Amino acid sequence: MAEKKRTNKRKYNVKRSAKMNSAKNGSAQKKKSDFKPRRKPAPKKQRPSIKVAFLGGLNEIGKNITLFECEGDIVLIDCGMAFPDGDMLGVDLVIPDFTYIEQNIDRVKGLVITHGHEDHIGGIPFLLSRMNIPIYGTPLTMGLLGNKLKEHNLFNSAKLNTVKAGSRVRLGCMEAEFIHVNHSIPDSCAIALHTPAGIVVHSGDFKIDCTPFIGEMIDLHAFARLGHEGVLAFFCESTNANRKGYTATEQTVTASLDSLFNEASKNRIIIATFASNVNRVQQIIDCAEKYGRKVALSGRSMVNYMSVAAELGYLRIPENMMIDIDMLSRYTPEQIVLITTGSQGEPMSALSRMAYSDHRKVMVGEGDFIIISANPIPGNEKTVGNVVDELLKRGCKVIYEGMYDVHVSGHACQEELKILQKLVNPKYFIPVHGEQKHLRKNAELAQSLGIDKKNIFIGDIGSQLEINHDFIKELAPVTAGKVFVDGLGVGDVGSIVLRDRKHLAQDGLIIIVASLDVYDGHVISGPDIVSRGFVYVRESEALLDEIRARALEILEDCADNNIHEWGTIKNRIKDSVSKLIAQKTRRNPMILPILQEV
Amino acid sequence: MAEKKRTNKRKYNVKRSAKMNSAKNGSAQKKKSDFKPRRKPAPKKQRPSIKVAFLGGLNEIGKNITLFECEGDIVLIDCGMAFPDGDMLGVDLVIPDFTYIEQNIDRVKGLVITHGHEDHIGGIPFLLSRMNIPIYGTPLTMGLLGNKLKEHNLFNSAKLNTVKAGSRVRLGCMEAEFIHVNHSIPDSCAIALHTPAGIVVHSGDFKIDCTPFIGEMIDLHAFARLGHEGVLAFFCESTNANRKGYTATEQTVTASLDSLFNEASKNRIIIATFASNVNRVQQIIDCAEKYGRKVALSGRSMVNYMSVAAELGYLRIPENMMIDIDMLSRYTPEQIVLITTGSQGEPMSALSRMAYSDHRKVMVGEGDFIIISANPIPGNEKTVGNVVDELLKRGCKVIYEGMYDVHVSGHACQEELKILQKLVNPKYFIPVHGEQKHLRKNAELAQSLGIDKKNIFIGDIGSQLEINHDFIKELAPVTAGKVFVDGLGVGDVGSIVLRDRKHLAQDGLIIIVASLDVYDGHVISGPDIVSRGFVYVRESEALLDEIRARALEILEDCADNNIHEWGTIKNRIKDSVSKLIAQKTRRNPMILPILQEV
Repeated sequence: MAEKKRTNKRKYNVKRSAKMNSAKNGSAQKKKSDFKPRRKPAPKKQRPSIKVAFLGGLNEIGKNITLFECEGDIVLIDCGMAFPDGDMLGVDLVIPDFTYIEQNIDRVKGLVITHGHEDHIGGIPFLLSRMNIPIYGTPLTMGLLGNKLKEHNLFNSAKLNTVKAGSRVRLGCMEAEFIHVNHSIPDSCAIALHTPAGIVVHSGDFKIDCTPFIGEMIDLHAFARLGHEGVLAFFCESTNANRKGYTATEQTVTASLDSLFNEASKNRIIIATFASNVNRVQQIIDCAEKYGRKVALSGRSMVNYMSVAAELGYLRIPENMMIDIDMLSRYTPEQIVLITTGSQGEPMSALSRMAYSDHRKVMVGEGDFIIISANPIPGNEKTVGNVVDELLKRGCKVIYEGMYDVHVSGHACQEELKILQKLVNPKYFIPVHGEQKHLRKNAELAQSLGIDKKNIFIGDIGSQLEINHDFIKELAPVTAGKVFVDGLGVGDVGSIVLRDRKHLAQDGLIIIVASLDVYDGHVISGPDIVSRGFVYVRESEALLDEIRARALEILEDCADNNIHEWGTIKNRIKDSVSKLIAQKTRRNPMILPILQEV
Repeated sequence: MAEKKRTNKRKYNVKRSAKMNSAKNGSAQKKKSDFKPRRKPAPKKQRPSIKVAFLGGLNEIGKNITLFECEGDIVLIDCGMAFPDGDMLGVDLVIPDFTYIEQNIDRVKGLVITHGHEDHIGGIPFLLSRMNIPIYGTPLTMGLLGNKLKEHNLFNSAKLNTVKAGSRVRLGCMEAEFIHVNHSIPDSCAIALHTPAGIVVHSGDFKIDCTPFIGEMIDLHAFARLGHEGVLAFFCESTNANRKGYTATEQTVTASLDSLFNEASKNRIIIATFASNVNRVQQIIDCAEKYGRKVALSGRSMVNYMSVAAELGYLRIPENMMIDIDMLSRYTPEQIVLITTGSQGEPMSALSRMAYSDHRKVMVGEGDFIIISANPIPGNEKTVGNVVDELLKRGCKVIYEGMYDVHVSGHACQEELKILQKLVNPKYFIPVHGEQKHLRKNAELAQSLGIDKKNIFIGDIGSQLEINHDFIKELAPVTAGKVFVDGLGVGDVGSIVLRDRKHLAQDGLIIIVASLDVYDGHVISGPDIVSRGFVYVRESEALLDEIRARALEILEDCADNNIHEWGTIKNRIKDSVSKLIAQKTRRNPMILPILQEV
């Protein structure tokens, strides 16, 4: 890394001196040519480079964060979180490793946010608690971020700057242009970074919806203009790169909801969707208005998002339409629409609580018409399915899994990706936001549109690129990774802790405690056996007795043979008891011998 | 239950006496009518009933087992296992609760198996280790079962009876007719039980393939004949009840494989599929023959299944085609097809090991053309996706997730379900095999075909039904449930053990050990703190010191105040340390105080 940096600096020096030369040495060179033949051409003017470091969002879903550096100035785009995988036991959320930013904090000019989803803003409180970077985003994005920072007591110190789509912000030698795009939350933007090395475009999350439910269509003219000016590199999201065709317009959802409201004219309607999907909630509110229903919200995050959206004018709510969830009993079922969180089957969410009869305020049953207006995120299929089953068992009518067009994706499918790629028409193409299969497919699309394979780069978190008009090359990687947040702890749960949790989860543990005589090492008390998560103790007393006898035998044997080194004694107990248990049960619980000297 | 049984017996008695009456009392009745006016009509002839108990396969995927009882005789259909859900930590597999069978073992005439999949035969070794029931099935089914029983040392004592599709077996008062169906394993059957109460049909797993790759089309004529004779009840599988249309014929897979073999003419081809999918393996072998490739198998279960299938003549293997996996290096890539397990991304499977460079014999990379010829079972999407990503990272070309038609389901979609329902034309319809959403949808299909809602029954495991020509009614439930197998233990892991494993998995544990003076209760040694899966210890010594100090304080306080009841002391430590940890970390590890008296 250090090596590479030096190389890079040298390049800048070369370039700068070349500039100076061209200004003042014009005549000097001519003079020389008077008495000498030209041996070689003047050193070619080295154009400036952009360095790009990927701190997240590659080979993973979420945790999007990219670092752009030009002439020593650094700009960040997004700072998101990710949800833990199934094997990250007990982890609440995953954030980027900020080490590289911290090391270069003096040169960081700002953090630019594309939109207000958790995978783009969720890491910011953890970043700001360590360094105070000025942040730029559109009104709704900053409103949602502000709310989040208040929860972390970081709002007052934060440097939040609201920017309108279409405008530009200067950040050191670079300028960030915010370009309106369509997505599943209003006020989403792509970013064009105008740098001394050229223009680079980052798509953020986008889709092309010619008839969105609220707001304007994506600003294709801006992308066309940039493409015309010449774009050095396009960083393009890849979420739906494996899906053919187009994402349907949100108007299809409007039509579906309308017909379902018709069908459910005698029922209470409950609709689950993403708390952040302001468009969808607006569609539901409009439908409720048409059919004369009141609307209540359920779920803390739903209430939070909607209050910010309403306050900032992104949600149009007719007067007297919203009712508190406590007021539900004052209305008949057909007068109500309840909008709720839990579309992913999250165990503690409002919809799950309803399904498992654990919601304090809403009991569901026959007469409830429930619409899940979202697709399961990969990995959530099973939990969503379980919630649907529970609701069905209670006699609810449930609309789920593409039974009707009650959901459209927020991301571009193949045809949309191709259109944006052709409009931007970059020299280099870098797929971002996705797992390997998404990145590869997006790269294939670019290749199919005529971009040379050597001008396409598929990276990983930590990858660092240098690009300019002459070349694209990979530099040594920077520090990057997954930092686990568990409760208040940030980063104190690592691979050893997770390995232990996994071991405990599989077969539980057996603790063997004994007090030894400080003088001769013989057992004074115990050994006592305590087990958790291993077997149902009452039915396995014989086995536990055998374990106790085996441990006692080893302890006494060690004392008799003058073995007093506790590490050795513990290992002997572990080995022998492990073998005994494996033979009797074919299980492998964690075995913890604990000795005390008295 | 006992009450109900008596009621039932009474009915049988009534019926038997009615029969006898009709035979010998014809004249007696006439005599009576000579001197008395007829006061009420002769008791209506009560027809016999069938009782059905669902011990598995309802509101769950797998673990299929149904019990049919008529005139005191009992016949079982299938005895499968299920894979554990994500919250059944450390559980290897799930089998039915056999209590109800055990209670009635004297009356059990036999176990009839529809086909050789794990969800239909996987529970049998655990059943046979407790009671020896005669088993009936087709040749391949019995071959696969025999193999499994050998592994459990149960083969020699088992009473295995091989039956050809189309034939009948007498089981007490009932006769089981085996009817050939299409499915993803050869030799699959539906069962028609001919009973004194009428005919009941159980579909087993099926689809309608008019042009299967091997074997005949499903015997629709048999279903038509039964429908014509009159069927009392149809127990119909529901796996694909939510899928519209038809499952495509297996010939589409043949066509896809052919074109992919063409495309991969310079590559090694690796195909992952279900180990039990004999049809698919035959298709691959035929393709390999056409393109002049050798075939190797990878994965223990793949080798097992194929050796049974080949031995019994269900797999046609050209001479000199199969090579051992150790021989791979003697051939060039384009001479090889490797058929492997791991289509579900199972962590220890052959394909996963290849993806993570952990396979002892196969290294994958550029030049490998990998086809996943299976769809992810719900819940496995994420692990399959991860394996695909790893393979892509290594430069393999990967065909997955419906990119081509390299897989068709083994189960009937809506149109097929409707056709079979109409052919069988039952009085009562009982959807089986599926979660609530599948059962409900299958019931809706039946209703749409004109079956009265009150003649449709959606049950749960443990449900018991009584049906005859006059009524269908639910009886009190029988004992049923999920028994967990973990290592050698069957049923010794229950809800308490799982709750502990879950707790340990979430936040780990903290053990607090102290030796107390047997006379005054004061601390002689410790308290020592041992933690696992909680925090990375080296970086959290201050916190552990605080915990130690807090525990010592409580122990000494108890001793000073003459509190010597260990339950009380331990609870005080737990409460206080829990609060301390929650406040400092917002985590909730398991806290285990262990005291010893010296």
